[in-house]
Amino acid sequence: MRRPDDFHLHLRQGPAMHEWARASSLHFARALVMPNTIPPIDRPERLLAYKAEIEIAAGPRFSPLMAFKIMPGMDAVTVEALKKAGCFAGKYYPAGATTNSQDGITGPGAVREALLAMETFGLPLSIHAELPEAFVLEREAAFLPMIEKLCGDYPRLKIVVEHLSCASTVEFLRSLPERVGATVTVHHLLFCLDDLMGEGLNPHMFCKPVVKTPKDRQALADAVLSGDPRIFFGSDSAPHPREKKEGPFIAGGPYAPGGVFSAPVALPLLAEFFDRAGRLSRLEDFTATFGARFYGIGLNEGRVRLVKRAFRAPAEIAGAIVLRGGEELAFSVETGGDR
Amino acid sequence: MRRPDDFHLHLRQGPAMHEWARASSLHFARALVMPNTIPPIDRPERLLAYKAEIEIAAGPRFSPLMAFKIMPGMDAVTVEALKKAGCFAGKYYPAGATTNSQDGITGPGAVREALLAMETFGLPLSIHAELPEAFVLEREAAFLPMIEKLCGDYPRLKIVVEHLSCASTVEFLRSLPERVGATVTVHHLLFCLDDLMGEGLNPHMFCKPVVKTPKDRQALADAVLSGDPRIFFGSDSAPHPREKKEGPFIAGGPYAPGGVFSAPVALPLLAEFFDRAGRLSRLEDFTATFGARFYGIGLNEGRVRLVKRAFRAPAEIAGAIVLRGGEELAFSVETGGDR
Repeated sequence: MRRPDDFHLHLRQGPAMHEWARASSLHFARALVMPNTIPPIDRPERLLAYKAEIEIAAGPRFSPLMAFKIMPGMDAVTVEALKKAGCFAGKYYPAGATTNSQDGITGPGAVREALLAMETFGLPLSIHAELPEAFVLEREAAFLPMIEKLCGDYPRLKIVVEHLSCASTVEFLRSLPERVGATVTVHHLLFCLDDLMGEGLNPHMFCKPVVKTPKDRQALADAVLSGDPRIFFGSDSAPHPREKKEGPFIAGGPYAPGGVFSAPVALPLLAEFFDRAGRLSRLEDFTATFGARFYGIGLNEGRVRLVKRAFRAPAEIAGAIVLRGGEELAFSVETGGDR
Repeated sequence: MRRPDDFHLHLRQGPAMHEWARASSLHFARALVMPNTIPPIDRPERLLAYKAEIEIAAGPRFSPLMAFKIMPGMDAVTVEALKKAGCFAGKYYPAGATTNSQDGITGPGAVREALLAMETFGLPLSIHAELPEAFVLEREAAFLPMIEKLCGDYPRLKIVVEHLSCASTVEFLRSLPERVGATVTVHHLLFCLDDLMGEGLNPHMFCKPVVKTPKDRQALADAVLSGDPRIFFGSDSAPHPREKKEGPFIAGGPYAPGGVFSAPVALPLLAEFFDRAGRLSRLEDFTATFGARFYGIGLNEGRVRLVKRAFRAPAEIAGAIVLRGGEELAFSVETGGDR
């Protein structure tokens, strides 16, 4: 199949970033890299420096597509400069919704100038669609009126609802214009609260938005298998150092941050998912076609080969525990001749 | 107020047990001690030895009431012997429902002789009411038909549904005869999934059954505040060593076990809850009257005094992190003159 894209990826910073970027480059040709670093990616020079560092780490076969973080009060001049620096999308983090989002957006009024500028310069809006004030299982559903409002207020803005996690969002998306797309992660597609806390509590399965009910998972699976071209793959792979996930914790917290480190196993797990559903032929659309078409960029030229042969997932990469790490997965990815 | 009882307590084994038993003895006159030790409390000699050890640890002001673990295939002779050894109740653990329950009950047929004997000898049945095969948030609701069946099959058996966690169980209990009671913990009464995973994931807030939605919590609060005499306090306080809760974990698990260590703070937290609801006068019923009456034992003679004065909760006792440990709570418990 065509080499896939990952339209939602966290690579973090520092030495570990280099290893995590290399891990993504093994299977993916491109990834939309999220900007919730410290400091955030909110200026052209930071964006360019971060991009260059990723390119050095991951090598020539991997192209980072860069997102910037939309900051409250950000002006049009900054957005234009970010666009000129090669920025690919702007990310909307509600304040307090996830890792390093304390400086996020409390309401869309605070980013009106930036959103108007993004509309003008053709920059897509990528949204962490959760209302942090709502009950944890209802945060995504509670954010939907905001999506509708943004959609109405910015009629030419391309919008991506990131990491779909609940059935009501899947349903809701059908009522929106075609310029609204969505990403689905491998963990929301395959797991639910039973995997997070059905037996022991597994911090490596904890993410924001949290995995939800079997019914929600089924709605995502149905949407992905239906071949809806507005729904495409974004891993939201989000490595954290093991000690942040497992503690020891200080009394009163902070406790384990959200983030599932899935990029190294995403493609084999997705292959297994599509194969079990008898729709392996649709894996390429989901991972290599729909996203690129939605964003309006060319398809990747390279190929990878999926083979139904046991693959031992790496347990840990640069201190972060990999999803299903150490286990045997059903599919291997061969990139040999093409790399 | 009258010294309270805790009708659901885990004290574990070994040296730490001594400290945990002492912690409970500070506020509580009696506690129903759960039998999911290794090996389980399922024979008279084990029960007597465990009871003696607790009595030595906790001192003369604390009386352990002992539960035995109902084992698949247990015979009437054993039940009678346990009763003669002073056993207070038998605990029903569905296989796989919680800590050390791998050897639990797969269906009520496997314990028919034991349940008939308990009925004959007037031993109450204490139930961990969860169907482990169901989705984690629906396990308690999925077990309700089993409660109904047990109620019908053993018409003279006194039954206690332990650690109520969801609104549907509260509703369901109303349809059952008066010989069916229920315990409510402080954590299910005060917390919900937002506290477990609304920000970071806090393993010290993780228990089985898991804390659920604000709606479930509200239903519990309404039931407790209504002064229903069949609903009484059982902490399900369940200390685990910090390293079991926080890891490091082996790939593939086991991950953090369920259990909230609440006994050292339960009474101050309950006082705050009742006080905020303007029903402080009902705290005594909930913690010192209803349970004893349901089980048909005398009320405690001693007194404790609740004072609205800041109390710094201990952060950790014998290696286990205390619920809200290290924080300032609104109520202090004075036991001075009476101890």
